[in-house]
Amino acid sequence: MQLSHRIETLTPGGSNGWEIFLKAKAMIAAGQPVIELTIGEHDIRTDTAILGAMDRSARGGHTGYAEIPGVAALRDAVAARITERTGVATGRDNVLITPGGQAGLFSAHCATCDAGDAALFIDPYYVTYPGTVRAAGARPVTVPARPEDGFRPRGADILAAAGADAKSLLINTPNNPTGAVYDRETLEGIGRAVLERDLWLLSDEVYDTQLWDGSHLSPRALPELTDRTLVIGSMSKSHAMTGSRCGWIVGPEEAIAHLINLATHTTYGVPGFVQDAALFALEQGDALEAEVAAPFRRRRALALEILNRQNVLRLLPPQGAMYVMLDVRATGMTGLEFAEALLEQHRIAVMPGASFGAAAAGHIRVAMTVEDSAFAAALETLCRFAASCCAPA
Amino acid sequence: MQLSHRIETLTPGGSNGWEIFLKAKAMIAAGQPVIELTIGEHDIRTDTAILGAMDRSARGGHTGYAEIPGVAALRDAVAARITERTGVATGRDNVLITPGGQAGLFSAHCATCDAGDAALFIDPYYVTYPGTVRAAGARPVTVPARPEDGFRPRGADILAAAGADAKSLLINTPNNPTGAVYDRETLEGIGRAVLERDLWLLSDEVYDTQLWDGSHLSPRALPELTDRTLVIGSMSKSHAMTGSRCGWIVGPEEAIAHLINLATHTTYGVPGFVQDAALFALEQGDALEAEVAAPFRRRRALALEILNRQNVLRLLPPQGAMYVMLDVRATGMTGLEFAEALLEQHRIAVMPGASFGAAAAGHIRVAMTVEDSAFAAALETLCRFAASCCAPA
Repeated sequence: MQLSHRIETLTPGGSNGWEIFLKAKAMIAAGQPVIELTIGEHDIRTDTAILGAMDRSARGGHTGYAEIPGVAALRDAVAARITERTGVATGRDNVLITPGGQAGLFSAHCATCDAGDAALFIDPYYVTYPGTVRAAGARPVTVPARPEDGFRPRGADILAAAGADAKSLLINTPNNPTGAVYDRETLEGIGRAVLERDLWLLSDEVYDTQLWDGSHLSPRALPELTDRTLVIGSMSKSHAMTGSRCGWIVGPEEAIAHLINLATHTTYGVPGFVQDAALFALEQGDALEAEVAAPFRRRRALALEILNRQNVLRLLPPQGAMYVMLDVRATGMTGLEFAEALLEQHRIAVMPGASFGAAAAGHIRVAMTVEDSAFAAALETLCRFAASCCAPA
Repeated sequence: MQLSHRIETLTPGGSNGWEIFLKAKAMIAAGQPVIELTIGEHDIRTDTAILGAMDRSARGGHTGYAEIPGVAALRDAVAARITERTGVATGRDNVLITPGGQAGLFSAHCATCDAGDAALFIDPYYVTYPGTVRAAGARPVTVPARPEDGFRPRGADILAAAGADAKSLLINTPNNPTGAVYDRETLEGIGRAVLERDLWLLSDEVYDTQLWDGSHLSPRALPELTDRTLVIGSMSKSHAMTGSRCGWIVGPEEAIAHLINLATHTTYGVPGFVQDAALFALEQGDALEAEVAAPFRRRRALALEILNRQNVLRLLPPQGAMYVMLDVRATGMTGLEFAEALLEQHRIAVMPGASFGAAAAGHIRVAMTVEDSAFAAALETLCRFAASCCAPA
C-alpha cells in the first residue's frame, strides 16, 4: 500500500525550495520580528470595493455551482483584456477560468504532456515549476538563461534541451525571479525553436501589469505562435487578490474545450462570487492595476538607489515583477548560506537563488513586499551584511 | 503539436454523461420553463450568516495567500468532526483542505496511482469518477453493485476486478446515485478485499449528513482500514455551499504531508475567507446540517408516497443522499430514451442512469432539488408519462 511514485518524488532530495520561507514563518509564529521578503505577497490587502462586489454577489445568491468554464461575463472580460493587449481576436471560448494561476500551470501541463513526456522550462524558474511538471506525470527539463544574457533564453539552448519526447516549453515574462522582460527578438527566437520541435508554448504572464522598463509582449501576439500558445494569467499580482485563487488559461478553442473537460474532473469550477469580484476588479480598468503596481515601482527605484551605493552585490535591474535578484558570489557564500546567515543574524528572510534552479545559484531573490521605509532599511542592512562578509578578517 | 492523450481521451466516446443536463441548461437559457432535477444543487442558497462570516473575514484582511494545508482552525474543526463521527483520534496533520470535493477526489487518485495503474470504483458511480481517474493518468476499473443487493458491492467482485496493477478502490456512502448507505457488513467485506489486494481505500463521504434510514459509518472507523483510507469530504451538500468549493481529505499523516506538497504544485490553497466561512458553518453544529438536509428528507417521503401509488417504475427507497433512482425498464425504454422523451414532452430534466455506469442502465436518477410542491407535481407527471409508455397501443 505505497503512495504513488509521482507524489513521493514530487520534490526529490527532500528540498522543495521553501525552507527559508518556512523557517521565517516559524520564527514569526514564535513571536520573533522577521522582515519577510520571500514570497510575492503584497503588503496591501484586496481593495474593499472588490470585496464589496464579492459580498453583493454572494448575498445576491451566486453561491451555487458556477459554470465550469467560468462565468460568461468574466470570460468575456478576460478575452477583451487579452484582445486589447495582444491584438489577437480572443473570445469567450478561448478562456477557461481557473482556481488560481498555479492551477492553470498544472492544467496546461496535463493538457499537453502525458506520463514520461518532457516538459521544458527556463532556469531560473518559479519554485513550483519542477513539481508542477512532475505532478502532471511529466519529466522536468530545464533550459538555462544566463545572467550575461539578462536571463533571456537562447533558441539554441531550447533546441538542445528538447528531445523527441518534449511536448511543451513554459516561459514566464515578466520573469520571476529574475525580473527579465522578454523582448520581441527573444520571443521570436523562442518561437523558431518551438516551431522546429513542434512544442506547445505555455506562457505564464501573471506579472503582466508590473513593468518598470520596456513593455509586455505576449507570445500570443506573434502570429506563428497564436495557435500553439496557452497563456496563464491571474488576478493575484495585478489586483492584490492572491488569496482569491482566480486565474485563467487563454488558448485555441479546441484546447480550451478539453481543458474545460479536465476542470470538470479535477476542480469543478471557481466560486461564482469570487469570479464576480474578479469581474468587478477588471472593470476598474488600468487605473486600479497601476495603483496596485505602484509600490513595487517605487521600491524598485529605492532598491537601485541603495544598491548603486555599494559594489559587493551585483544586480540586473529588474524590468518587471516584484523582486530584485542579487548576485552574492562576491561574499564567498552560496545563496542559501547568505539567506540563512541573513535570517539568523538580521531577521531578514529572502529566497536563496538555488530555490529557482542551477542558473540562479549564487544569487538571492528579494521580494519588494514591505512598506517603503522598512524595505529600504532592510536592503541597507542586507548591503552592510554583504560588505561585512567581504571585509578582510 | 498534439494535446495529451490523457486529455483527449478523458471522456471517450464523446459522451461524458452530462448531455441531458447541458440540453436542459440550454433550454432554460432560451427561456423555456424546465424543471431541473439533474444535478445535486440545493434549491436554497448558502445561509446569509455564513456569507456574513465570509465578508467579515475578507474585510478583516484574510485576502492574502492562505496556508496551503488549510487554515489551522478549519483543519482542527474538520479533525474534531471526524474524530466525533469515527471514534478515531484525528488531528490537524490528518487534514488537508481542498478547493472542493472534486479536487479531493482527483488529488487522492494522484496520490495513490501512477500512470497506467488501475483505480477501482463501484458502478453505479458519480458521473465524474471515470474521468477523474483518467485525469490522474490511471485506468478506470468498475466493480458492479447489483440492484438485488441494494446496490452494495460484494467483496468477491472487488477481488475479481482488482488485478496486480490495482492501487485504489473508491467507494461512496451514502451513495450517489443509488441512495445506498453501506452497513458494517458491507464495509467489512470491502475491507477484507482491500487488505487482500493491498489497496488504498478512497471514501467519498460528501453526503454524510443526508441520512434517511440507518446511520453513516465511515471506513476510517474500522481499525483495519484507518491507515489505508483517505476520506473525501466537502461543505457542498452538508451546508449548501456548493459554489464555495471547499472540501477536505482526511487520512494518515504521511499521506496528508505528500498531499499538501501536491496541493502546493496544483492549486496553491483555498481562499482564506472561504475557509473562515466554512469554519463558521461547522461551528453552528448539527442543527444547521439538519436544517439543510430537511427538505430532502421531506421530499424523499413525498417521493415514496407518490411512487407507491404506481407499479411501472420500481425503486429502492434511498437510505441517504438527495436523489431517487428509478428503474424505468418496464417502459421498454433505456434510461437515456426516457430522460430525452421526458425533457422533450414534459420539460422535466433528469439524469439517465447510464451516465452513472452500466449497472444503472435502465434507470434514471431524479434529484430532489426543487421546492416540495413542484417536486411532487413533477414526479406525478413523470409517473403518468411512464404509465402512458406502458399503456396498450
